[in-house]
Amino acid sequence: MSLPDRYHPAVSAALSSIDVTALRHVFFVACGGSLSIMHPAKFMFDQHASLPSDVFNAAEFVARQPKRLGPDTLVILCSMTGTTRETTAAAKFAREKGAVTIGLTVDPDSPLGAAVDHPVKFEAPYTTGVPIDAKDSNYSIIYQIVMGLVAASGGEDLTGVLIESLSGLQAVIDRAQETYAPLWDRYAEHFAKQDVIYTMASGASYGAAYSFAICVLMEMQWINSQAIHSNEFFHGPFEVLDETRCFVLMKGIDSTRALDERAEAFLHRFGRAENILVLDAAELDLAGIDPRFQGNVVPLIFFDTLWRFIYKVADHRQQVMLDGRRYMKKLTDY
Amino acid sequence: MSLPDRYHPAVSAALSSIDVTALRHVFFVACGGSLSIMHPAKFMFDQHASLPSDVFNAAEFVARQPKRLGPDTLVILCSMTGTTRETTAAAKFAREKGAVTIGLTVDPDSPLGAAVDHPVKFEAPYTTGVPIDAKDSNYSIIYQIVMGLVAASGGEDLTGVLIESLSGLQAVIDRAQETYAPLWDRYAEHFAKQDVIYTMASGASYGAAYSFAICVLMEMQWINSQAIHSNEFFHGPFEVLDETRCFVLMKGIDSTRALDERAEAFLHRFGRAENILVLDAAELDLAGIDPRFQGNVVPLIFFDTLWRFIYKVADHRQQVMLDGRRYMKKLTDY
Repeated sequence: MSLPDRYHPAVSAALSSIDVTALRHVFFVACGGSLSIMHPAKFMFDQHASLPSDVFNAAEFVARQPKRLGPDTLVILCSMTGTTRETTAAAKFAREKGAVTIGLTVDPDSPLGAAVDHPVKFEAPYTTGVPIDAKDSNYSIIYQIVMGLVAASGGEDLTGVLIESLSGLQAVIDRAQETYAPLWDRYAEHFAKQDVIYTMASGASYGAAYSFAICVLMEMQWINSQAIHSNEFFHGPFEVLDETRCFVLMKGIDSTRALDERAEAFLHRFGRAENILVLDAAELDLAGIDPRFQGNVVPLIFFDTLWRFIYKVADHRQQVMLDGRRYMKKLTDY
Repeated sequence: MSLPDRYHPAVSAALSSIDVTALRHVFFVACGGSLSIMHPAKFMFDQHASLPSDVFNAAEFVARQPKRLGPDTLVILCSMTGTTRETTAAAKFAREKGAVTIGLTVDPDSPLGAAVDHPVKFEAPYTTGVPIDAKDSNYSIIYQIVMGLVAASGGEDLTGVLIESLSGLQAVIDRAQETYAPLWDRYAEHFAKQDVIYTMASGASYGAAYSFAICVLMEMQWINSQAIHSNEFFHGPFEVLDETRCFVLMKGIDSTRALDERAEAFLHRFGRAENILVLDAAELDLAGIDPRFQGNVVPLIFFDTLWRFIYKVADHRQQVMLDGRRYMKKLTDY
């Protein structure tokens, strides 16, 4: 098959060199924030592909040794810097088992880049400090891989539609910043006083809720958190809801939206409005994104726009953003 | 194939009526505490089976509509009372798609029991108030299904070894109560004062950590929590660790034990001993359990023994155990 010209060249090169029709399983493998993008990737894959897949933390993947791993399996890994030891180890382990490996990183010369069959470079604003175009982000790359695999394995070829949508995504995000800006002003000071803030989402957006909970609230602001699945909420977690508890609900527009709506109704029934920050994707102007991918790009919009919120929160907490860590990037011997 | 005589009759009946060799996917589907047992089921399945599988919250499963769902797929569901609406809806949805369904419940006459092709009854102490034998528990049943599927789909037949191990499990749990009892006395009063307690585990035990976090700490004690995967801990969550933060670490003996050991070392390096409750499965007397299944039965032991801990915690919190809920079983209109 041939992919559209505008596809990421390294994605096109990787997919054209892999016998996709012979694949029998895809593993999405990473740690932390990079693992969080694997959840929406699997969501997209589950809805479009006939191939089975799994999402695993990299160390879990190696220790678990899934029996299905072997020749004719594809392992897609991601580490922003390419220096995450567990992810590099997972790439080596996968290759030893005969699997084909694709590794996403901002630095193809990194250990992960060197360990995989097919390194694919993406851009991240956190490494350069310079704004990037969303079509060059990790989300964009993983989605290009997913829909490329779908097309090459006999599914519908939506690669042209996808790349068109991804090319228009940055303008959508820029508009979303304006849409959500009033929320940040309304909630930042109050949320900055909290010791616990839960995030909640489902479907394509669950990964963004996970990332915001563990990489932003916990890691950067030392605020206790958990990414609660919008339906799992009703099977235990909702009992912590009272008039003081704060939540960030990411209300998507994919096929799981009703789950978020039910959670929102409950939050507003028993919680207080000042504690319930709802990002509703239905309020966004998604012109330029094909309806078939609007639900999928939403988590990227949520995560990107929430950076402005957390900077405002951090200002109120007087904790230096991105540098306020105790352990990460400060310790090396663990 | 024929399963051992001591296998649960309904499991044997279900598996003998299903053409397992024709299956191409297994879905493990439930909500909350019942979902938590699907994680160790998948762990066992991943290590023994050549069939692919997924674990989904029941509402997510229906809304996601995985493309692989259809004829020649098996959907295994669980709801203790059999009245969980999302799980019953998932069973109906799966059957409409042509899948075969097995439903675990204490009440085969419940809505879930009526909605599935093959209801399988298990025992739960929470419904009868009477102690049960662990071989009749939900964990035991799901493991019998998993290893039955493995044997029937061309994998190694360990069903005899498994049922022998499960038959000896209650004695192991009874001994484990004594092993861990000193921990409960040491930690209960201090943990009762906490507003946040994290749980942590990996591999076979992750589900037990999830269940203890959302169904026990959050639901029954209104203590904020998150089940942190032992390796994901190092990719964000560990930044909330300080001299005050409390953790329950479930240190298993399956193939992921090294992940828990690394987390434990870090917890003890930067946390305080009084805040770090470690349940180490290596301290247990597992005589009677075949070494090939020792790692798998550990989460059941952890979860069962921790009940005694949470009763002690609840005593200190003066919050009535199991009845101290705001919403669950009190509201019906949500």
